[in-house]
Amino acid sequence: MPTGLPAANSSVVTDDEGWVWAQIKAEARRDAESEPALASYLYSTILSHSSLERSLSFHLGNKLCSSTLLSTLLYDLFLNAFSSDPSLRSAAVADLRAARERDPACVSYSHCLLNYKGFLACQAHRVAHLLWRQSRRPLALALHSRIADVFAVDIHPAARIGKGILFDHATGVVVGETAVIGNNVSILHHVTLGGTGKVGGDRHPKIGDGVLIGAGATILGNIMIGEGAKVGAGSVVLIDVPPRTTAVGNPARLVGGKEKPSRHEDVPGESMDHTSFISEWSDYII
Amino acid sequence: MPTGLPAANSSVVTDDEGWVWAQIKAEARRDAESEPALASYLYSTILSHSSLERSLSFHLGNKLCSSTLLSTLLYDLFLNAFSSDPSLRSAAVADLRAARERDPACVSYSHCLLNYKGFLACQAHRVAHLLWRQSRRPLALALHSRIADVFAVDIHPAARIGKGILFDHATGVVVGETAVIGNNVSILHHVTLGGTGKVGGDRHPKIGDGVLIGAGATILGNIMIGEGAKVGAGSVVLIDVPPRTTAVGNPARLVGGKEKPSRHEDVPGESMDHTSFISEWSDYII
Amino acid sequence: MPTGLPAANSSVVTDDEGWVWAQIKAEARRDAESEPALASYLYSTILSHSSLERSLSFHLGNKLCSSTLLSTLLYDLFLNAFSSDPSLRSAAVADLRAARERDPACVSYSHCLLNYKGFLACQAHRVAHLLWRQSRRPLALALHSRIADVFAVDIHPAARIGKGILFDHATGVVVGETAVIGNNVSILHHVTLGGTGKVGGDRHPKIGDGVLIGAGATILGNIMIGEGAKVGAGSVVLIDVPPRTTAVGNPARLVGGKEKPSRHEDVPGESMDHTSFISEWSDYII
Amino acid sequence: MPTGLPAANSSVVTDDEGWVWAQIKAEARRDAESEPALASYLYSTILSHSSLERSLSFHLGNKLCSSTLLSTLLYDLFLNAFSSDPSLRSAAVADLRAARERDPACVSYSHCLLNYKGFLACQAHRVAHLLWRQSRRPLALALHSRIADVFAVDIHPAARIGKGILFDHATGVVVGETAVIGNNVSILHHVTLGGTGKVGGDRHPKIGDGVLIGAGATILGNIMIGEGAKVGAGSVVLIDVPPRTTAVGNPARLVGGKEKPSRHEDVPGESMDHTSFISEWSDYII
Amino acid sequence: MPTGLPAANSSVVTDDEGWVWAQIKAEARRDAESEPALASYLYSTILSHSSLERSLSFHLGNKLCSSTLLSTLLYDLFLNAFSSDPSLRSAAVADLRAARERDPACVSYSHCLLNYKGFLACQAHRVAHLLWRQSRRPLALALHSRIADVFAVDIHPAARIGKGILFDHATGVVVGETAVIGNNVSILHHVTLGGTGKVGGDRHPKIGDGVLIGAGATILGNIMIGEGAKVGAGSVVLIDVPPRTTAVGNPARLVGGKEKPSRHEDVPGESMDHTSFISEWSDYII
Amino acid sequence: MPTGLPAANSSVVTDDEGWVWAQIKAEARRDAESEPALASYLYSTILSHSSLERSLSFHLGNKLCSSTLLSTLLYDLFLNAFSSDPSLRSAAVADLRAARERDPACVSYSHCLLNYKGFLACQAHRVAHLLWRQSRRPLALALHSRIADVFAVDIHPAARIGKGILFDHATGVVVGETAVIGNNVSILHHVTLGGTGKVGGDRHPKIGDGVLIGAGATILGNIMIGEGAKVGAGSVVLIDVPPRTTAVGNPARLVGGKEKPSRHEDVPGESMDHTSFISEWSDYII
Repeated sequence: MPTGLPAANSSVVTDDEGWVWAQIKAEARRDAESEPALASYLYSTILSHSSLERSLSFHLGNKLCSSTLLSTLLYDLFLNAFSSDPSLRSAAVADLRAARERDPACVSYSHCLLNYKGFLACQAHRVAHLLWRQSRRPLALALHSRIADVFAVDIHPAARIGKGILFDHATGVVVGETAVIGNNVSILHHVTLGGTGKVGGDRHPKIGDGVLIGAGATILGNIMIGEGAKVGAGSVVLIDVPPRTTAVGNPARLVGGKEKPSRHEDVPGESMDHTSFISEWSDYII
Repeated sequence: MPTGLPAANSSVVTDDEGWVWAQIKAEARRDAESEPALASYLYSTILSHSSLERSLSFHLGNKLCSSTLLSTLLYDLFLNAFSSDPSLRSAAVADLRAARERDPACVSYSHCLLNYKGFLACQAHRVAHLLWRQSRRPLALALHSRIADVFAVDIHPAARIGKGILFDHATGVVVGETAVIGNNVSILHHVTLGGTGKVGGDRHPKIGDGVLIGAGATILGNIMIGEGAKVGAGSVVLIDVPPRTTAVGNPARLVGGKEKPSRHEDVPGESMDHTSFISEWSDYII
Repeated sequence: MPTGLPAANSSVVTDDEGWVWAQIKAEARRDAESEPALASYLYSTILSHSSLERSLSFHLGNKLCSSTLLSTLLYDLFLNAFSSDPSLRSAAVADLRAARERDPACVSYSHCLLNYKGFLACQAHRVAHLLWRQSRRPLALALHSRIADVFAVDIHPAARIGKGILFDHATGVVVGETAVIGNNVSILHHVTLGGTGKVGGDRHPKIGDGVLIGAGATILGNIMIGEGAKVGAGSVVLIDVPPRTTAVGNPARLVGGKEKPSRHEDVPGESMDHTSFISEWSDYII
Repeated sequence: MPTGLPAANSSVVTDDEGWVWAQIKAEARRDAESEPALASYLYSTILSHSSLERSLSFHLGNKLCSSTLLSTLLYDLFLNAFSSDPSLRSAAVADLRAARERDPACVSYSHCLLNYKGFLACQAHRVAHLLWRQSRRPLALALHSRIADVFAVDIHPAARIGKGILFDHATGVVVGETAVIGNNVSILHHVTLGGTGKVGGDRHPKIGDGVLIGAGATILGNIMIGEGAKVGAGSVVLIDVPPRTTAVGNPARLVGGKEKPSRHEDVPGESMDHTSFISEWSDYII
Repeated sequence: MPTGLPAANSSVVTDDEGWVWAQIKAEARRDAESEPALASYLYSTILSHSSLERSLSFHLGNKLCSSTLLSTLLYDLFLNAFSSDPSLRSAAVADLRAARERDPACVSYSHCLLNYKGFLACQAHRVAHLLWRQSRRPLALALHSRIADVFAVDIHPAARIGKGILFDHATGVVVGETAVIGNNVSILHHVTLGGTGKVGGDRHPKIGDGVLIGAGATILGNIMIGEGAKVGAGSVVLIDVPPRTTAVGNPARLVGGKEKPSRHEDVPGESMDHTSFISEWSDYII
Repeated sequence: MPTGLPAANSSVVTDDEGWVWAQIKAEARRDAESEPALASYLYSTILSHSSLERSLSFHLGNKLCSSTLLSTLLYDLFLNAFSSDPSLRSAAVADLRAARERDPACVSYSHCLLNYKGFLACQAHRVAHLLWRQSRRPLALALHSRIADVFAVDIHPAARIGKGILFDHATGVVVGETAVIGNNVSILHHVTLGGTGKVGGDRHPKIGDGVLIGAGATILGNIMIGEGAKVGAGSVVLIDVPPRTTAVGNPARLVGGKEKPSRHEDVPGESMDHTSFISEWSDYII
């Protein structure tokens, strides 16, 4: 019996995707005109391509290739994945928007597409994750290794990551095998979502929607960082953090105290307020 | 007077080395069959080689080469070192075993050989260290620089490192000139074994056998981390840590207190228990 | 009215620059003679060049190039910048001296020029910064991206950096858009000079002359680290630090107390004493 | 009115194409097993691909790329052409068969696919010709230039070439803009199908079906080499050659004389008999 | 006594050079707009450069580089030569005009600049010749070797070559050490200007102004091909050829006979008439 | 019973080899000193190596590598062959001497080693031939293909070639599968030793000791060019040429006539006299 639903069509470009791609091309065209020295780069990475998926596949293929993993092989792999799985493309678009909206240093969509190692590592991870789910694990791990070498971002291909993610600066991020990251999360550089030891199984953090994790925070074990929680820079977190609370320090404590912690805005992962908790952080006495 | 000992023969392959190499080839063959897209890579890095030392030399040569330090030069350098010094080979085998046994995300020996930047950086360091001891310092330092660029792992070529080492994730590890690391040690990413200032001489930490150092720990100065000690993630350690105790926090304190610190298992570097001390860490109050 | 000053001449080589370049060539010649395996590298990067600016441009061009940003383009860009702006050259010389004088592991000027990723990232940043000031922002950001990929050092091209800077080890350093770093500052690896959120404007730290910032310190917001102050390794600093005081811990506190903090030597950025404050850091109780 | 013809479908693989591709894979598999040093190459060029068009596109993309024309761009271009135009694929198959059947040194189809510069240059030319017909002339000429550099085979993209062509050895072949080559032609190395001067228009030779042209023959002007004719090695031909006759010498004369030239076999381009005319070549008197 | 002449200034761009460069940029801009796939290439090789000498230096540097002779080194070498010696630039312009005017397949100046291996080999030779005259012979010979490898054009760096030269197709051209080629000469592919044996000294042909040499002609020994002479394709010439006569055949004879050879147009090197002598070539009897 | 012969030892360096290698190093050292721009190249290809076999293996590995056949693989292959088979080394030395003694343009041994494509193609062919004899045919053919692409020299790996060979200029040389070339032969560029058709078996020329073959000569079929014979440039030879006679023309005739051909010097392959026969070549009538 017909469902009445439109046939799934992996190659349909959504309006949103189309709009972002049009922005990217317009930005690249403007930059190519104003800066001839960069025009060749902008044409090869963006302006010569007919779609975001082709541009991204080309760029990742050339960034991640090595003398033993050729760019043509990687390009093929990426293009296949991005062409056949529309959710990869919508996630990329959501991540582009996240960088553009949350990071004041992000001056354009094309700037993020070309230069943000966190964005690029995340998109490449999504493809590695797809391969992992397809039981193509050796290939997923080889891709993982290239991402870790090239971007110094080490996300295990089994880790599950939502949409609208900003890995800001990104260098040194480590995300373990059984970690899960929700939607609209912002994670700064040097953040670890690590395990607890040598026993396998579910052993890494679960990060709720809208969470903000400051630079250098270390979160270890199969614990829950609740929706909209905030983890201060440099914190070491080994126990669950309740939703919409802030954990700071080493070892981390809740701002406002364990019993009646302060509650803050709903989606710090989007509002990106890193430092509002200072006045409440009683020990802080410089 | 004859000693009755067999003549030293640098090219003898030990049983252990032979067994691991056979495993690696079997794993690579299986993966090449199941994943044609990776077969070329597996043949070039593993299956076309007649020994672990050739495979490793090829892989490191191609990973670490640049436009001014050619792969053929580095390959030659590595092959020479691994062929002539059997202790380099046995250390590599011990490190492969360490990763396979301690890291639940390490699914095979070949996975470690191909993809673990900590493993690869460590083997390349061992060769840089050999060059350093042979007073070929400019070459040792050039190699050191390539390792730091490619893997974001910065181990001074003079640092002495034991066997059975796991550098897990490895990005951001810094090990200073006069540091010493014992056997069966596990060190997570972003760990610093740093110096104390601009005066030369012996100024970096000494890490005893079986120590476990958590992610992002900073250990500074010519201090001793005793056998089987544990340093918690994110800790800042500036004073000796007694054997089989746990130091946590910034500044680090001993779990259980300075006077009667808790004692734990003998070899945390092997058991890899990162978080068991939580309940005893009194300040930790989320 | 004539000033009586000599006309500015961008191609004049200062005595200091000439002396350092002569040292570098002598060191490279000595190393090339003693180590034939490295001679080719030393000739291509140093000995074949007629000036420090050419050597540095060549080296950076080859280090930072990619398949889509060719070495010839980058070489041209660097050579243009270093040739036309003498302050870039004098800053490079001051940075070479800083490494040579402050880092006991720095055995020669050529060692720093060739191998110090902090030095190289900083010189490349200076050129990116020049491009930024010339409103060639897309090019500045593309260069920024290459520096972040290759050296894992992420300095926004708008950030202003003085002379005589030592980025020691350098991996993982992040410096935000509106950060300012004075002269004679020493910054260890994994240091973050970060922002406070998603609002633009002046939002990053200002680091006074002669400051020393230890490994892994995180300094966030538009705060002032006063002249000659010291920030301990792993500290998290969110409030101004007065001149010539030491802030340590997470959250950071002043050594000696908030009211009457201890004062130390004038230029810790030069004296590089990382650990002298330990005895005064009362909580430190291993 | 329906034609009764099957719909054109560019991605249908013909039986013939499928058979040859199966042969190639079987040969490559056999060779990879017997020669581990070559296995990586065989997997990357043949065994990792799902079709002849992908293998050929990969191989040509990697052979013809340069630092300014990247392999990913060329791969895309070739794959697009071979995927969308089945006549390109059937011509490639016919050329593979021609080499295999006519050249006793051609030991396998995969040998031709991988190693015959004449075969590879011809397939790349067919794509350049397609671009030319699509009025994408600058791209066609850039591809032409790469073919001429890499293979020393210089076929103008406008030249029209039939199927079942063997360019044996191929180095030094030059084919001008208005030249036409029929089906089942064999052309040895250093053969020129050249023009007559600086006036444009139709000015290059037309080579009939089944023609054989010996090494180093120079054929100039808008003349006709009739079906099944033979041109001896080293000949210089400036006037039409009648079908199934043999022209030899410099200047070329017909074997058997102008009035009653000897007739030979029908398709020398297939029978490849280079020297049977010797006894009739009266001047030949060593 | 002052001459009243303007001082020589090597960086002055002549009107002619400026006009051709403007044409080239306009052509490249038009092609980049119509063909996005080629735009990156056109920007990197032409449109990002401020002068013909920079574009040519970039293009040659990237074409001729190898893993042991880096593009940056060659770029520097070419740019130095073209910048300091205006005669190199005017010769390049004259050669561009020669191709554009004489070769009906040459559709634009940029087509010649980018794609004509004869043009590129000749400009690179001019730089090698400059090095030779400066007694930098090992470097001249290394460059010679790269030209011979990459373009299959083998011109000894000591050979002297005039202006307005067209090496059409160019593959296989060999020009010996003591050869001299005048102005406005056109030489087809596979032409040899060779020596006579193993004795040194002046032993190669001298080619007068305006000469046209057909494909595959072999001219051996210290003989004179007089001004405006024509050598037919495939000819073997071992004796002087008088001005404005035509030598054809193997061994070559004068068209019209030794005693009263036919005279033709003044500058066949420009008129490019390859075949007009046929009717007079009495032996030619197909 | 002992033979009295010294044991075969593949790694013994003969006096001759040692002497030539010492010359090469001395020449390279002199050139590196006088030309800093070339010093890097000279160190990487010659001065950093401990033996001729290592230098040659490095140079060939880097010249012949491609993105799918890595330099490390080829280097290994060459080094293995040259180390294990002393006859390859003595042939290389004999060929170096041949170039140095017979070619007045050959200014030094190192010039030949670095720059002579004929020399390099011949040494690489010798290794391909060794592989062929060891029944490693796919690898031999892959190497053959690289030599043909890179040097435009196409020698079938089965062809047997003696010692003291000079392939002068070399571009375009084609040598078929069953060809045999004796000792002390000199062969100019564009020479073909070709077959006769599509039937397999012994079908290519046999070239006696001391033969000289001029540029562009085409020799076809299983014929004998007798010891010390000379083949003029551009000749087409299809019948045996007796020892110490000269064949010239197209078709070739014997100088002096078929019945009583002129006899010349014993070893024209060494004396290299290309043109002495002119006066006797009666048809030659310019």
